[in-house]
Amino acid sequence: MTIPPHSQLLIGQLLMAPAGRNPDQTIHDGEGSVHTYRQFHARIGQLAAALTRMGLDRGATVAVMDWDTPRYLECFFAIPMIGSTLHTVNIRLSPEQVLYTINHAEDDAILCHADFLPLLLPLLSRIKRPARLIVLTDGPAPLPEGFDGEYEALLATEAPDFTFPDLAEDTRATLFYTTGTTGDPKGVSYSHRQLVLHTLAIAAGLGTVPGKGGINRDDVYMPITPLFHVHGWGFPFIATFLGLKQIYPGRYQPARLLSLIAEHKVTFSHCVPTILSMLLSAPEAATTDLSRWKVLIGGSALSDGMVRQARRHGIDIHAAYGMSETCPFVTVADMVASQANDDITIRTAAGRAAPLVEVRVVDPDMRDVPHDARTTGEVIARAPWLTAGYIENPEGSADLWRDGWLHTGDVGHMSPDGTLRITDRLKDVIKSGGEWVSSLTLENLASMVLGVREVAAVGVPDDRWGERPVLVVVLEGAEPVENAIMVRIAAAIATGDLPKWAAPDRICAVAQLPRTSVGKVDKKLIRQMLAKGEIT
Amino acid sequence: MTIPPHSQLLIGQLLMAPAGRNPDQTIHDGEGSVHTYRQFHARIGQLAAALTRMGLDRGATVAVMDWDTPRYLECFFAIPMIGSTLHTVNIRLSPEQVLYTINHAEDDAILCHADFLPLLLPLLSRIKRPARLIVLTDGPAPLPEGFDGEYEALLATEAPDFTFPDLAEDTRATLFYTTGTTGDPKGVSYSHRQLVLHTLAIAAGLGTVPGKGGINRDDVYMPITPLFHVHGWGFPFIATFLGLKQIYPGRYQPARLLSLIAEHKVTFSHCVPTILSMLLSAPEAATTDLSRWKVLIGGSALSDGMVRQARRHGIDIHAAYGMSETCPFVTVADMVASQANDDITIRTAAGRAAPLVEVRVVDPDMRDVPHDARTTGEVIARAPWLTAGYIENPEGSADLWRDGWLHTGDVGHMSPDGTLRITDRLKDVIKSGGEWVSSLTLENLASMVLGVREVAAVGVPDDRWGERPVLVVVLEGAEPVENAIMVRIAAAIATGDLPKWAAPDRICAVAQLPRTSVGKVDKKLIRQMLAKGEIT
Repeated sequence: MTIPPHSQLLIGQLLMAPAGRNPDQTIHDGEGSVHTYRQFHARIGQLAAALTRMGLDRGATVAVMDWDTPRYLECFFAIPMIGSTLHTVNIRLSPEQVLYTINHAEDDAILCHADFLPLLLPLLSRIKRPARLIVLTDGPAPLPEGFDGEYEALLATEAPDFTFPDLAEDTRATLFYTTGTTGDPKGVSYSHRQLVLHTLAIAAGLGTVPGKGGINRDDVYMPITPLFHVHGWGFPFIATFLGLKQIYPGRYQPARLLSLIAEHKVTFSHCVPTILSMLLSAPEAATTDLSRWKVLIGGSALSDGMVRQARRHGIDIHAAYGMSETCPFVTVADMVASQANDDITIRTAAGRAAPLVEVRVVDPDMRDVPHDARTTGEVIARAPWLTAGYIENPEGSADLWRDGWLHTGDVGHMSPDGTLRITDRLKDVIKSGGEWVSSLTLENLASMVLGVREVAAVGVPDDRWGERPVLVVVLEGAEPVENAIMVRIAAAIATGDLPKWAAPDRICAVAQLPRTSVGKVDKKLIRQMLAKGEIT
Repeated sequence: MTIPPHSQLLIGQLLMAPAGRNPDQTIHDGEGSVHTYRQFHARIGQLAAALTRMGLDRGATVAVMDWDTPRYLECFFAIPMIGSTLHTVNIRLSPEQVLYTINHAEDDAILCHADFLPLLLPLLSRIKRPARLIVLTDGPAPLPEGFDGEYEALLATEAPDFTFPDLAEDTRATLFYTTGTTGDPKGVSYSHRQLVLHTLAIAAGLGTVPGKGGINRDDVYMPITPLFHVHGWGFPFIATFLGLKQIYPGRYQPARLLSLIAEHKVTFSHCVPTILSMLLSAPEAATTDLSRWKVLIGGSALSDGMVRQARRHGIDIHAAYGMSETCPFVTVADMVASQANDDITIRTAAGRAAPLVEVRVVDPDMRDVPHDARTTGEVIARAPWLTAGYIENPEGSADLWRDGWLHTGDVGHMSPDGTLRITDRLKDVIKSGGEWVSSLTLENLASMVLGVREVAAVGVPDDRWGERPVLVVVLEGAEPVENAIMVRIAAAIATGDLPKWAAPDRICAVAQLPRTSVGKVDKKLIRQMLAKGEIT
């Protein structure tokens, strides 16, 4: 197949519509600095010129270590548009893991915010490939030794009218590393084509929700997901494509995020449940108008308790489902249905397949389980934007794509109307007496008990039953909650919503739940701590 | 580039989202018959099975001659999905031209509604390639001689669970013929990839208009553009992709169209100005609630007069711009701006480039003219869905794509904010004293005069000035309008909106304007009739 250069699907094309339409629309940082889209375009040209002058172009890999800032957004476009790969470094990894990803990615350049120099500088001597180094500072500062320049100073010397090269649409555009609880981080990459298709399809899916729901061109966008996490779930591309007013909040501090929402009248954000919980627990939340705020929740399950809390603030909250390997959108809660019927279960479901996505729930022999909203199996998917595999990891890639479908490693069930609900991670499933116990159902029930801030259900070895469920909870205050949780679970058993054997054997209170670098509860560690008696 | 089968962009993927989401949503014909999307899917499978059983599959070309019906929509999907090309026959062409297109397309099968048998049967003996023949009837009728079967009877014998083949995304999906005022019809084709990208991008563009504007998943769709005209401007694909309730009205009769709009609460349609004018002139229009109706106008310029008339009915009317060679969307009037400011000039402009489209206005040396909303030039475009060229017509194709841009043959200007306005067809431009006179501006001024139903401005040869403008008008009643038109034109000259030399030399009243087969005013014929004294 030959596609003429101008018909290739390239990230640069996402800039054309807002450039023509909204040149005076604005992009803000969290400190009061602002650029118009016209200036944003010019800066993309200047950044591209500066990088090209340093010898970076087709085939190079350029790493970025920054907070969520407008500069990061410039990198989202300029780096792929010159034919380089944008490596979004996960700055929450351990220093050794950061070093591993920089070496594995073979980065040719690293753009590092001054705040992350204490992380990067000690690693420099062990970075194998010589990398050009650019520092991003928020004010005058001496150039660190060995660095090639400062971001703003480099841009200032370049003309804005850079001529971008023609590229093939399957050119690698982005690269980042995903970490499980075991093994080395795995590299996941996406092409220009994949990112353009993801942007178009998700914009079409969310855009056509009637009324104020979904996403529209009058929305004001602020990410509260780190941009290194699956390119901020793809939303910076979508928001830019639609020409939205955008706010990049920098470092996440609850009071500041709330004040930015109020100042800029932010209407659309996305985050993991923990961040929203943190935000709504801040004292300023009580006095901030959040009634026009639409929030998509991903990364972990959205609990009933969190929906209730968000709805009390008037937040239009919905779950979405995806993962690092899926760009990330696979399904979204049904926003059309939630407008007609404000039912918590509509908002918390992983939801319906996004446009162009095929989702199945299958048994270990790849047979579809019945769509009865009850029978669980592994969730598998296909879509034009799923990653082709892990970088230099043929075994991991083959396992991810066995039988021609991407295996998510998540367990869920499907309702007759095609609504997916995730019940567990395959590796976190609790198997008791030969039956699966849904840890998410247990967590959801406990989350609705007053006084419970967070909860994790895990399986512990049991001689008789194989495994038995245990709940580990973080309390809001000093009041014990065990009885209230057990009463709620008994009620769910009485109504048939929960099988009898799913009642947890014990409930342990802890000060906090251990988490992975991207903020997910680390159940593997919890199981180890329970086994060692570190949690009792 | 190798794309795995499940990542190819194929028309069949457009069915996945509504199939999962809206299986009980309905598709109606104009006679009260209805199918759910679930049944629609089954029928697509049955049609695919029937065609495959007749030996039609990859590489075959299957022609359809029908009104705008749900069966035609089934053909939009089933025929490309088996790897065949859907040839949408323009049944308004002359019999000789229909024969030419069938022979030129080398159709392997023809699906013909009984109403068009009087057109097709006399041509059969001169169709060169042996074609399978299927008749579409609305009730019991004998099978015409030489026909292989009747549509419903063929479907009834097939199972609905057809397994569609994997296809490459650049497989040809559709083919139709475009006619100018000279030469043979030219074949224009589109691939699966092009139609999927057009669907995604236009859905994303129209979907993200805030509020009730644009297109949303609660819209009720009814085309009033023949489906053979650039696949109904692509909207049947968009409406199906979004899972909308759809109404296919059959033959266009004003009273029936109005009653379908009322019965089904139609909210979204598209048509040429003539059809809307016909509809609003029908007596039933006065008593039909059209206040929730959104209408996109294309094919010809949208005049100020037509907007005023439509707005009196509460219709949310906007112009869009494109052509047979562009799939067809190139630009759309700015619906976000028209919500904020109900200004006629926003609604009548060709508008802003659709997502992924690049539009330029250039002089004969391909230099961009100033974006001053005044300087005119030819409109050229690029987008991933523009046709690659005319079938078996390398010269025409090279001319269409000279310098790597699709040349529309339209003349227009661009405003500083990127709004395109079409002022003429290149071949209809009036050149007087070395200056271009915009026939659309003249027509627009005249259209606002009470008593003027339709108007065409053309140039007639003039010894002194080269050409001089003449207006040809169709009157509403018997009242003369010449003076009123000249007063309005004098006012436009006084305000500087029109140059002095653009005032027409004369105004001729006619009973009707001659039109091409797709309903456009045939200015070439008008010029000939003026030269021969047939219009005075």
